[in-house]
Amino acid sequence: MKQITVGIDIGGTNTAIGFVDRDGNCLFETSIPTKEFEEIGPYMKNLCSLIQNELQKHADCQLMGIGIGAPNANYHRGTIEEAPNLSWKGTVQFCKLMGEYFPNVKIAITNDANAAAMGEMIYGAAKGLTDFVVITLGTGVGSGIVVNGDLVYGHDGFAGEVGHTTVFPDGRECGCGKKGCLEAYASASGITRTVTELLAQTKTPSPLRDIPFNKLTSYDVFKAYQAGDEIAKETFEYTGKILGIKFADVVCHTSPSHIFLFGGPAKAGDAIIRPAKQSMEEYLLPIFKNKIKIQLSGLMDKNAAVLGASALAWKELEK
Amino acid sequence: MKQITVGIDIGGTNTAIGFVDRDGNCLFETSIPTKEFEEIGPYMKNLCSLIQNELQKHADCQLMGIGIGAPNANYHRGTIEEAPNLSWKGTVQFCKLMGEYFPNVKIAITNDANAAAMGEMIYGAAKGLTDFVVITLGTGVGSGIVVNGDLVYGHDGFAGEVGHTTVFPDGRECGCGKKGCLEAYASASGITRTVTELLAQTKTPSPLRDIPFNKLTSYDVFKAYQAGDEIAKETFEYTGKILGIKFADVVCHTSPSHIFLFGGPAKAGDAIIRPAKQSMEEYLLPIFKNKIKIQLSGLMDKNAAVLGASALAWKELEK
Repeated sequence: MKQITVGIDIGGTNTAIGFVDRDGNCLFETSIPTKEFEEIGPYMKNLCSLIQNELQKHADCQLMGIGIGAPNANYHRGTIEEAPNLSWKGTVQFCKLMGEYFPNVKIAITNDANAAAMGEMIYGAAKGLTDFVVITLGTGVGSGIVVNGDLVYGHDGFAGEVGHTTVFPDGRECGCGKKGCLEAYASASGITRTVTELLAQTKTPSPLRDIPFNKLTSYDVFKAYQAGDEIAKETFEYTGKILGIKFADVVCHTSPSHIFLFGGPAKAGDAIIRPAKQSMEEYLLPIFKNKIKIQLSGLMDKNAAVLGASALAWKELEK
Repeated sequence: MKQITVGIDIGGTNTAIGFVDRDGNCLFETSIPTKEFEEIGPYMKNLCSLIQNELQKHADCQLMGIGIGAPNANYHRGTIEEAPNLSWKGTVQFCKLMGEYFPNVKIAITNDANAAAMGEMIYGAAKGLTDFVVITLGTGVGSGIVVNGDLVYGHDGFAGEVGHTTVFPDGRECGCGKKGCLEAYASASGITRTVTELLAQTKTPSPLRDIPFNKLTSYDVFKAYQAGDEIAKETFEYTGKILGIKFADVVCHTSPSHIFLFGGPAKAGDAIIRPAKQSMEEYLLPIFKNKIKIQLSGLMDKNAAVLGASALAWKELEK
């Protein structure tokens, strides 16, 4: 029998499902449309029936556990709470509901960024590391903090929100309602906001001046960067500088050996990592200098969300 | 037999030693002058002989372990490394050297702020808590971060340096060589620097205008505050505001249920805690609002350094 865990990544539009072995091979992958289910009951029935049917087809597979990555998920309580992009309002007792379909299976849930950190540890570039941080750059900025080989959940299950630490106490408005959060500078839209500021502040010619704010994407900025555009260059310098300042703060808290970057904007690679590293070193306490590595996630081109969720399940089995 | 641990607090001037039972009662206390020993060899001989002699006198006591709090101490390596205020240069293999005198005793060392956090957990206001942070305000700003019931040491043993996270990327010069650290705003001298800035920026009359910069202490500021001085009031408001901003960052990292303040400036109590709480709430993500407590350490008027070191030893015995 081949031991597998099921990894489930719940997004606002789709839910991705994968059967994953201990080495990170996906034996089966599919998805269902999250937003077609306005109620959790029918969603859960659909999701669990699909998994049960597939398990019967994979008679050589032994289900060891189920891991779920979801927005606003609470590991301690096994819930999804007030997720703004999901139609299920209030607190959803996700693990409990799922447990009714899989009564003797370990089921664990955590947020997307924590799942990414688990994926990094079990299948990715953090294998064998005990103290590291994964930063996910995308629509938002998420983080999963690993200390002494385990995720930091904190007293309430919501720890690891580096995206909402403060860069400038009176800085840019953030989607969370606060001002000056890292996310307002280093997310995909943070990057386009920096471009827009530079367009206003400088006279530097750039094709980026021809794209309306609402159409500008961080990918446009990366393409402009590759074409040698000065505004794009300066944007990545600035984004890296801000990331570096906050990475130095991260180091002061939990002293990770590595900080891994994941997500769309991270694909800019050295354009962001070089200035981030330089800025982090500048803001590090002397005892931390020249020993913390910043590098790309080892799961950049893989189905990282499903792998992360399945990794959470493997990790639970070790406990 | 009464079980005890020995707590040792190494300061630049004196080393305090105490025999402490599991309830935090000091059965014996003394000290030796650290700075009279330029070499670690004679210091260690003196320290260990003293402890051995006292143990013989306390025939009803059973030594369970030894804990040490020291500047620049590394828990992982059992060392004191490049401590600026101690005359022993380089790396001192403290636990190993001490182990030669106490071959079958568990010996552990950590820095002062981590020891304070252990003291809080074993004897103080953090009994029964699993996720909390202790911030020590004094000559510097130290921190001990507890996650899931244990201190966070990080990959290198130096985690928990909240005092050197950045408030303003281009802010005040800090003693560590960086700019804009929390310590440059919230330590005792940070407080007097804020007074001095306010003296320059405002025309507000204040008796603090009669004290030279080099003589002004945070205690002077507290006395002025109690007498209703406006500059002192505004100073504590500002100090609290800065602390609150960085406490919100701390919460984003490890989501503690409590943040405990310890040390001289913390004696200002509500003058600092009220604005710190207000500012922290302002900068917290919605999911964290109204649930994190900021309060004074439960060891404020006790021999917290020795208690903390002895608590470290008790904690080791649980492992």
